[in-house]
Amino acid sequence: MQNKVTPRILPGFMELLPADQILFNDMYDTIREVYESFGFLPLDTPIIELSEVLLAKAGGETEKQIYRFQKGDNDLSMRFDLTVPLARYVSAHANDLVFPFKRYQMSKVFRGERPQKGRFREFYQCDIDIIGSEELDILYDAEMPAVIYHVFKKLGIGDFTIRINNRKVLGGFFSALGLADKIEDILRTIDKIEKIGREKVIDELIKLGVTEADTARILDFITITGDRAQMIASLRALGIEDETFILGVNELETVSDAMVMFGMPEENFRIDLTIARGLDYYTGTVYETVINEHPEFGSVCSGGRYDNLTGYYTDKRMPGIGISIGLTRLFSQLRDNGLIAPKTGSIAKVLVIPMDKEAIPFAVNTANTFRANGIPADVYYGTKGMKQKMKYAARLGVPFAAIIGADEMASGTLALKDMNGGAGQRTVTVDEAIEILK
Amino acid sequence: MQNKVTPRILPGFMELLPADQILFNDMYDTIREVYESFGFLPLDTPIIELSEVLLAKAGGETEKQIYRFQKGDNDLSMRFDLTVPLARYVSAHANDLVFPFKRYQMSKVFRGERPQKGRFREFYQCDIDIIGSEELDILYDAEMPAVIYHVFKKLGIGDFTIRINNRKVLGGFFSALGLADKIEDILRTIDKIEKIGREKVIDELIKLGVTEADTARILDFITITGDRAQMIASLRALGIEDETFILGVNELETVSDAMVMFGMPEENFRIDLTIARGLDYYTGTVYETVINEHPEFGSVCSGGRYDNLTGYYTDKRMPGIGISIGLTRLFSQLRDNGLIAPKTGSIAKVLVIPMDKEAIPFAVNTANTFRANGIPADVYYGTKGMKQKMKYAARLGVPFAAIIGADEMASGTLALKDMNGGAGQRTVTVDEAIEILK
Repeated sequence: MQNKVTPRILPGFMELLPADQILFNDMYDTIREVYESFGFLPLDTPIIELSEVLLAKAGGETEKQIYRFQKGDNDLSMRFDLTVPLARYVSAHANDLVFPFKRYQMSKVFRGERPQKGRFREFYQCDIDIIGSEELDILYDAEMPAVIYHVFKKLGIGDFTIRINNRKVLGGFFSALGLADKIEDILRTIDKIEKIGREKVIDELIKLGVTEADTARILDFITITGDRAQMIASLRALGIEDETFILGVNELETVSDAMVMFGMPEENFRIDLTIARGLDYYTGTVYETVINEHPEFGSVCSGGRYDNLTGYYTDKRMPGIGISIGLTRLFSQLRDNGLIAPKTGSIAKVLVIPMDKEAIPFAVNTANTFRANGIPADVYYGTKGMKQKMKYAARLGVPFAAIIGADEMASGTLALKDMNGGAGQRTVTVDEAIEILK
Repeated sequence: MQNKVTPRILPGFMELLPADQILFNDMYDTIREVYESFGFLPLDTPIIELSEVLLAKAGGETEKQIYRFQKGDNDLSMRFDLTVPLARYVSAHANDLVFPFKRYQMSKVFRGERPQKGRFREFYQCDIDIIGSEELDILYDAEMPAVIYHVFKKLGIGDFTIRINNRKVLGGFFSALGLADKIEDILRTIDKIEKIGREKVIDELIKLGVTEADTARILDFITITGDRAQMIASLRALGIEDETFILGVNELETVSDAMVMFGMPEENFRIDLTIARGLDYYTGTVYETVINEHPEFGSVCSGGRYDNLTGYYTDKRMPGIGISIGLTRLFSQLRDNGLIAPKTGSIAKVLVIPMDKEAIPFAVNTANTFRANGIPADVYYGTKGMKQKMKYAARLGVPFAAIIGADEMASGTLALKDMNGGAGQRTVTVDEAIEILK
């Protein structure tokens, strides 16, 4: 007897049993359907790219996480997000694409992080981006949250709020305080306010060399409240004359007005001046999305506007806007908290069970008829007894079993059994069965 | 100005423009739909696995092609097929799965081959397998080609023939000749007969030490012709008393009879005694599929029966049967030969175009109504002139444009333009537009 290898996978990699995989695929398909309903085009870039190309921009923490290796003469890396491949793609194919270019990509990305709860090394990102050539109308900034709204409405995982802000408002405000050189650090600190609390943010700002007076002004600023119109009014009432700030407030007003025009219920979004997004390339509108009952999930869908996607690859300026759903993490959080649960472990809607060998041709024919009518159907071909066959149907989790024996064959019927009990078992024609199964 | 990195990908990696990607996804979705119609369950294993686990069986050529690398303390490999991960999965989860376990997986696999035309380093495999626990009824061997039949019928890429054979017939025949120790080499040689021709096969057999008399008998054997019943009769008429041979002929008869019973037209399959499949783990029924008009494509869907999938991981015996479609290669062959071509570069069925700023709310509302009725709809938000807007619609390849100006808003209508010419442009209500677009 040979030595056995223990069949195991690496920590940080998600693999599901069939019932959970069906649930995951339902979410995946729902997101894809909404993305496509807005006309986004599919894209599928390679998982492995040349390191020189993929890491043109990367550095620091990101670069450490990359799965990077040598194969033959090539220095290769596995993609760590879908944004860099998009930048490479639109740069290479700019002449073949139509701008604004709306694309979705829903694929795995790889980050060799230290494994910890809720962190994955291989995970699905579900991204949409709209890329302009030289320019991209501000109204596209309002279409993004409209897509998010429809995705989360359709996923049906509870009330949610899309929080929007504008990096120009933040940037302009800090410029006006004379803190332009500290903007990145301050934004990163502010971004953590929900995680670490107000007091720690104050401490960190002081540590960054912000005066107590400015720290107070910053805290007042990011805690401006009220409805949309009130917040815009409060921002204007600050009397800040910095051009970037004024432009940012105008953009925020335009985008949030347009969101209402786009049919988004006001309870599903709000302006939140604390949102900065840690990444350094957002330049305008930014978004985060929270499940109201589960703020501890963090943002389940984030993104924003960037001035130039493709600076590392081409001189063409390509502004864009994008959002991303980290589906693997979201699925894992929802499942662990019981917010989603598998409805079935079966893709087939019906298992056709021939009672004996003679019934097999009729069973096969019945299953073919079901399939031709759009009903996924499985047939059990084993030679076990009826009790074993019914046990198989039960374990499979299939909603209906269609049992076929000599009587059924003689009368051209089948015994349709509701495996969940409800409708019991009854003798029906194949046509009647199709109606019930549909 | 910074130095630019040339935006490029590696040879052997396929990346498509949107119109081709839509076409590819249509094929992918069709295959998935057929797989699911037979009740196969989805599976999504990690792309990266521990080398120790993934390479338990590998060796020789396969191992050289693996993308294998070190990350931290881990020796990692990227999967090179979907069969080894399946073996690992069913071994690890045997207690949680229901057998026969029918699963599909349609994902990328990776082989660092020397790049050449038609060979890919990253490509989609679309696999189905049915795994039994200790046993698996022979009728499942007939279900596999039924699935293949429906896939290729639905893909609509021309007439095709599923060729079936049985390894036991081959094995038993060679045992009877006293060539049991040379079986693997002989089968490998026979497998090449379509590629290298009859004469070269004879040369190679002689080189293997097969006598001229036996070589003649082998050639006679593999060129047995006739319809199904005739071939089975001819095989039996050989009078070979080897038990494996007799079992194999019986299996071949059972499976091919069942294929007819499963509703497969006889013109779509035939017994072909030359088919051995190069891999060493098939033990019974084997399949290949050829597009009749394009034998040079080679087999576009292959597979077979294996006695034990999981020997490297568990003592449980798990026989199974599986097939695989190499979708990336097939797509590439079909497209390069003009057998498929993109119908559209657009996911949206209609582009809603507001003539001016005032028309935007009505346009947005109209697009929302289209989407709510299951019609993917895009809206153009740019501020360019009408000529530019129509040019955008044309380049996008969207089938219809819905133009909205002051007149349309006043009358609650839109100007629906057939971008392909056919129906011209006419003023319709939103409800009428929905009917047309559906």
